[in-house]
Amino acid sequence: MNRPKLQDVAARAGVSVATASRVLNNRGYLSDDIRRRVDEAVAELGYRPNEIARSLIGQRSALVGLIVPTVADAFFGELATHVEGALAQRGYKMLLCDCHNTPEREEKYLDLLQGNRVDGIITSTHNRNVAGYGRADLPIVAIDRRLGEQIPTVRSDNRTGGFLATEHLIARGSRSAVHITATDHPGNERAAAYRERMAAHGLEARVMAYGFGASVDERRAAIETWLTVNPCDGVFASDDVTALMALDWARKTGRRVPEDLRIVGYDGSAALHTAVPGLTTVRQPIERMAVRAVEVLVARMTDATASVEQEPPLPVELRHGWTS
Amino acid sequence: MNRPKLQDVAARAGVSVATASRVLNNRGYLSDDIRRRVDEAVAELGYRPNEIARSLIGQRSALVGLIVPTVADAFFGELATHVEGALAQRGYKMLLCDCHNTPEREEKYLDLLQGNRVDGIITSTHNRNVAGYGRADLPIVAIDRRLGEQIPTVRSDNRTGGFLATEHLIARGSRSAVHITATDHPGNERAAAYRERMAAHGLEARVMAYGFGASVDERRAAIETWLTVNPCDGVFASDDVTALMALDWARKTGRRVPEDLRIVGYDGSAALHTAVPGLTTVRQPIERMAVRAVEVLVARMTDATASVEQEPPLPVELRHGWTS
Repeated sequence: MNRPKLQDVAARAGVSVATASRVLNNRGYLSDDIRRRVDEAVAELGYRPNEIARSLIGQRSALVGLIVPTVADAFFGELATHVEGALAQRGYKMLLCDCHNTPEREEKYLDLLQGNRVDGIITSTHNRNVAGYGRADLPIVAIDRRLGEQIPTVRSDNRTGGFLATEHLIARGSRSAVHITATDHPGNERAAAYRERMAAHGLEARVMAYGFGASVDERRAAIETWLTVNPCDGVFASDDVTALMALDWARKTGRRVPEDLRIVGYDGSAALHTAVPGLTTVRQPIERMAVRAVEVLVARMTDATASVEQEPPLPVELRHGWTS
Repeated sequence: MNRPKLQDVAARAGVSVATASRVLNNRGYLSDDIRRRVDEAVAELGYRPNEIARSLIGQRSALVGLIVPTVADAFFGELATHVEGALAQRGYKMLLCDCHNTPEREEKYLDLLQGNRVDGIITSTHNRNVAGYGRADLPIVAIDRRLGEQIPTVRSDNRTGGFLATEHLIARGSRSAVHITATDHPGNERAAAYRERMAAHGLEARVMAYGFGASVDERRAAIETWLTVNPCDGVFASDDVTALMALDWARKTGRRVPEDLRIVGYDGSAALHTAVPGLTTVRQPIERMAVRAVEVLVARMTDATASVEQEPPLPVELRHGWTS
């Protein structure tokens, strides 16, 4: 089997080997005509670059690691799709590091990715206290998470999200809405905005935190118990899954939604919107967050000395459905 | 920066370099004590194998490509999680090739994966007519899809799934249930089982196919139109997303579920079960399918001459909720 070489591609396209290489590596400015000719030659000859050899020669693996809690979650699955798409467009392949929601795996993946000489890492996990990021000597971008001064964070506007959800519930007539979240830590801007808006309207703020370590069943049980014990006329949930747990509790206990209980979720993933289109939610710009994370990472991989800029938060919006 | 070498690990663990290498590559039988000593030495020294160099030396990249329609879908997101976990347990990393539901990307990924010298490919896409698989000179395993004589298929028991769903609807009193699916092709065993069971009870079978190429909005519109025009008292949907579209249509048009319309979905992904726990569905053993696909692939990567065995289908089960 005689594999076509880069020289063959260049000859067929009528360009130099250096130019053919630049097209294949997507480097430098090239005319559309030259790109087309090289692409056609690649297709006609069935040329496949040996990328492992290329990564050793060029000191680039063209690999980026994505660390996520789990792609089985609708939000992170959608995020992973768009990160992968944005990387592919720029010539990078993506190693999926799925933590199955455990911090131990996250630490292990950080080590693995560095041993494997990926070009960079995008991380979107929620585990706190993972020590590895401080030691990392690779470009890293975090999504919706503060890891340190030297690591850029791409996020959407959590403060405005909390504002929109709370003001919406109050405008619809809710007077005793609860905020349900994983952990009520000082950096939780959605919870802070909820407290601020409730106080601004002279209403009592109550934050119910079920805990990051809780399993789905434990979370559901904690939420159902809280809602049964504590009268309230609204739920602002920090994610759509939690909002849907409140909706299911209302159905089981005979509460009318929205008359007895108004429910607002958060995230707005396509999968859950398709499943329950009527859920009111604060939509994060998931694709924009993914693309921006890739842009920032590629900039740092290209120039490691680039200063870390504070990224402005990306805009969110409220999508109104029948649950509120 | 002085990176620790394999020699340092072996010396610290008090084993030979060959033994340390076997532990790190997870090859051959080794005592728990030796494994533990080498693991401890790796942790103490912060040793990281250079896997790119290792892949060139050993002709292994320790990389497997997973081709999926998109991990933004609850079923494929859960499948990807478990494939990744099963591969990681066996020392492989996973390149995620997310096709964003387009056949063009699938073909491109097949080429890319071969150029990239992955050790093997697991594919779970639904696109038909992708030509690349016939040309592939790598071990491939398909999930729920027939690609050719030389490519093993791991799947669950679609015939029994169609049987369970249809018999359940009939046992609950449904007499005019429709089967809604993407395409009603001859290999569609769920549709075949539905037709067979309807006929066995003397009932008229109707299959509504919305088409693989349909967007989510097009699918929803087609289903809502069909349900509005054609009276029926039951829906057996070929996936949970479609079942939830029928449920939303019933809510919008004032049909009572299950009294006026009984609804059964298919797949039983954890994400949609968490979102709508009351949906009756046929659960595929997603984790078992993922693990089995990895086992079959690893066997073929280890011994390329192994004969392709027909895999027995994995068992499904009906989970009964309030929608039926």
